Amino acid sequence: MVKIKNDAICSMEEDFAQWYTDVCKKAELMDYSSVKGFIIYRPYGYAIWELIQEHLNKQFKETGHQNVYLPLLIPESLLKKEADHVEGFAPECAVVTRGGLDELEENLIIRPTSETLFCEHYAKIVNSYRDLPKLYNQWCSVVRWEKTTRPFLRGSEFLWQEGHTVHATADEAHQETLRMFKVYENMAKNLLAIPMVTGLKTPKEKFAGAEESYTIEALMHDGKALQSGTSHYFGDGFAKAFDIKFLSKENKQEYAYQTSWGVSTRLIGGVIMVHGDNNGLVLPPRVAPIQVMIVPVMQQKAGVLEKADELKALLKAEGIRVEVDASDKSPGWKFAQAEMQGIPLRLEVGPRDIENGECILAKRIDSSKEKVALDEKLPATINALLDEIHEQMYQKALAHLNDHITPVSTYDEFKDVLEIKGGYVKMMWCGDVECEEKIKEDTAATSRCIKTDEEPFGDVCPICGKPAHQVVYFAKAY
Amino acid sequence: MVKIKNDAICSMEEDFAQWYTDVCKKAELMDYSSVKGFIIYRPYGYAIWELIQEHLNKQFKETGHQNVYLPLLIPESLLKKEADHVEGFAPECAVVTRGGLDELEENLIIRPTSETLFCEHYAKIVNSYRDLPKLYNQWCSVVRWEKTTRPFLRGSEFLWQEGHTVHATADEAHQETLRMFKVYENMAKNLLAIPMVTGLKTPKEKFAGAEESYTIEALMHDGKALQSGTSHYFGDGFAKAFDIKFLSKENKQEYAYQTSWGVSTRLIGGVIMVHGDNNGLVLPPRVAPIQVMIVPVMQQKAGVLEKADELKALLKAEGIRVEVDASDKSPGWKFAQAEMQGIPLRLEVGPRDIENGECILAKRIDSSKEKVALDEKLPATINALLDEIHEQMYQKALAHLNDHITPVSTYDEFKDVLEIKGGYVKMMWCGDVECEEKIKEDTAATSRCIKTDEEPFGDVCPICGKPAHQVVYFAKAY
Repeated sequence: MVKIKNDAICSMEEDFAQWYTDVCKKAELMDYSSVKGFIIYRPYGYAIWELIQEHLNKQFKETGHQNVYLPLLIPESLLKKEADHVEGFAPECAVVTRGGLDELEENLIIRPTSETLFCEHYAKIVNSYRDLPKLYNQWCSVVRWEKTTRPFLRGSEFLWQEGHTVHATADEAHQETLRMFKVYENMAKNLLAIPMVTGLKTPKEKFAGAEESYTIEALMHDGKALQSGTSHYFGDGFAKAFDIKFLSKENKQEYAYQTSWGVSTRLIGGVIMVHGDNNGLVLPPRVAPIQVMIVPVMQQKAGVLEKADELKALLKAEGIRVEVDASDKSPGWKFAQAEMQGIPLRLEVGPRDIENGECILAKRIDSSKEKVALDEKLPATINALLDEIHEQMYQKALAHLNDHITPVSTYDEFKDVLEIKGGYVKMMWCGDVECEEKIKEDTAATSRCIKTDEEPFGDVCPICGKPAHQVVYFAKAY
Repeated sequence: MVKIKNDAICSMEEDFAQWYTDVCKKAELMDYSSVKGFIIYRPYGYAIWELIQEHLNKQFKETGHQNVYLPLLIPESLLKKEADHVEGFAPECAVVTRGGLDELEENLIIRPTSETLFCEHYAKIVNSYRDLPKLYNQWCSVVRWEKTTRPFLRGSEFLWQEGHTVHATADEAHQETLRMFKVYENMAKNLLAIPMVTGLKTPKEKFAGAEESYTIEALMHDGKALQSGTSHYFGDGFAKAFDIKFLSKENKQEYAYQTSWGVSTRLIGGVIMVHGDNNGLVLPPRVAPIQVMIVPVMQQKAGVLEKADELKALLKAEGIRVEVDASDKSPGWKFAQAEMQGIPLRLEVGPRDIENGECILAKRIDSSKEKVALDEKLPATINALLDEIHEQMYQKALAHLNDHITPVSTYDEFKDVLEIKGGYVKMMWCGDVECEEKIKEDTAATSRCIKTDEEPFGDVCPICGKPAHQVVYFAKAY
């Protein structure tokens, strides 16, 4: 069968933004609603999110976290209790002013994030060192009024999880911040097959109200960065603003220490833009709602559909997510559709294959095909192939990332690399916000993170010429 | 050990409403937030909801349903498209009038339910008979501005699932309505151990916009009914309002037929009020976040905590939800706490038990105890006991329900039964809304459902004296 380029979508090279939107729509991940920035998560897109949830819930529970659900609405006065926090979120708030038939006495904000609600609750339930730590997580949607929106990447409403924990000591809270940062990095690698640049946000870029924000940053096909998850250390700042105190073992009243951390449906956007190609979506197997699509060939012939269903049952019994496309479309159409939806493996089976006791397995990632025996080893073969595909996808993304991290030592170099090659530009940074601001103004690139685990490769900030000790990654970002 | 009545909560007989609130708080199911009617689902309460979700998700997926997520906000004009629907919901709406720093051009309503959003989406994606049916479900929270609120039972925000389906024919949509009605009835019986009175809502009580509403109604300890789940048949009413049309096999444009169905965190309130007692919550095993609490006795003695942990691992490996209470509280305190939290089985193990190779299992529901050998059969014994407890709880609730269904043939009898005995009063009904309204005004009881599967036991409506063919159950309700 001759490979046909899928004309239903724009090519990446022609218009990356259009390609992205086309894939979102044609792979049936989402649809638009009549409210700008509020998208519909269609079954196929939502199923990806459910797989991310399942993976993280398992990680969260293994590390002792409990799920809770706090209110959707925050009184305006409560949001204002921590000064930096409200300053960060006020411009993005959706405000409820009427409830039932009455004007409200106090405006209510749809949660843009829930630190303030968790703090209010913690102030009530944390009284003694015995009550600590509290390791809570919440799955919900949040609303942040955005002017420019794009499916999954930036929306006025998005789905996420927000972890909020409270601890007796600064050290314990700090350990928790780092632990969840690692959980995210591992999830990106082992579930999404996405290598991340990881590190600390600069003071300018950290979360409103945090002392430190750790971030995982992915690199998209077009050379832009995508902040994909953050883990924040709050110190006792929120505890002081919300009066979260406890009686210590030494019988003293002390303030508690806190963290928060979150990832969102933005990860779906990351998956699309890291792995996708000009035939559509390419899904890493572990997060693919359908891992194997069985396409019966000459399905009107006796025994073909029965065989397809039998294979489906065989694979399903081994935990493989599998479907049969038994629609009345042509095999060619079905192949293109399975490609568009990024299904990792296509299993073709027709009358002659059945006669020969074999089938064809085609890999989405490189279109390679192999003949495989239709025997009891098939599920194991497929599971091994899915693992192989995962690794192949991760290595491909890692190579792309490593090819797009460029050290620079002058500002001219910085601008050239950003302009010509894109990706991450790393430089030594003096620590002054003015240099970050100048870069942003001149080039639209922002600091993505301070790489605390990387050796300095110079000692001068290329922007101001002052002494520099920190390795900082800059990039244009979504 | 002498059984001590738990004084932390009010007794049911003294004040049922206070008992209920006490249990909600002391069992740590929920807490209040600073916005009236918006509660915090604490880990233990939320875990019950997660078990309900898990059960229903399995049922939904087995019946071919897919999860989706639609926007939180609905444009006011969209909500107004179906006349009955908006009339039903307008008085309960929370209204967003400001987004970011701007007044909105059109007010947005926080979803009180999502029919209108699903319809708008269906109008776009349903074009041919090949696109049908669409069997979608959504897990989310909804907001309905309530004047009087009670934890789980009636809140301004609650968690629920809402199924929304669209079909080619009236018959198929009707089958779907009945199928999900049965899924709910079975869930109540097999998961929550709650027997339900089931039937059809009267036209006055049906859902705003529905042609028919099927309901499952539970009976609380205090003799009040609790509407616990509904399944609605819409006919093509919404399809006409929202222009959901498709090209049929016969190549004709036809309107589609729809259903919706939902259950909410209200079920948690039902579980509390059907099964609870004066020592607190009593949880049916299949929905208990902790099925077995291991209480080590004389835990400071060598080997006791180790044994407790070993047993925990043994039971956990067999899928039993089990914890060890190794806190520094006394066994008596731990027993009371496990009772308050309604944990179905308590496993006591101390030094002498270990020596004798046995432990004590105490059932929450009747405080009965038995000695059981500490051998490899323990998990099977406990699993059998949990099933036995489930059945025992169901039969107890069923007996209470059957004792509280009273047929009447005069209005005086109706009022007496309602006043003295409570529960369901069943009578023959003429079908006139005036009779329902009179009953409501006189007695505060409402029609709960038409029992379509019950033989008529008379032929005159006791209210108006006109001919009556329908058996209707009335009750005071939450």
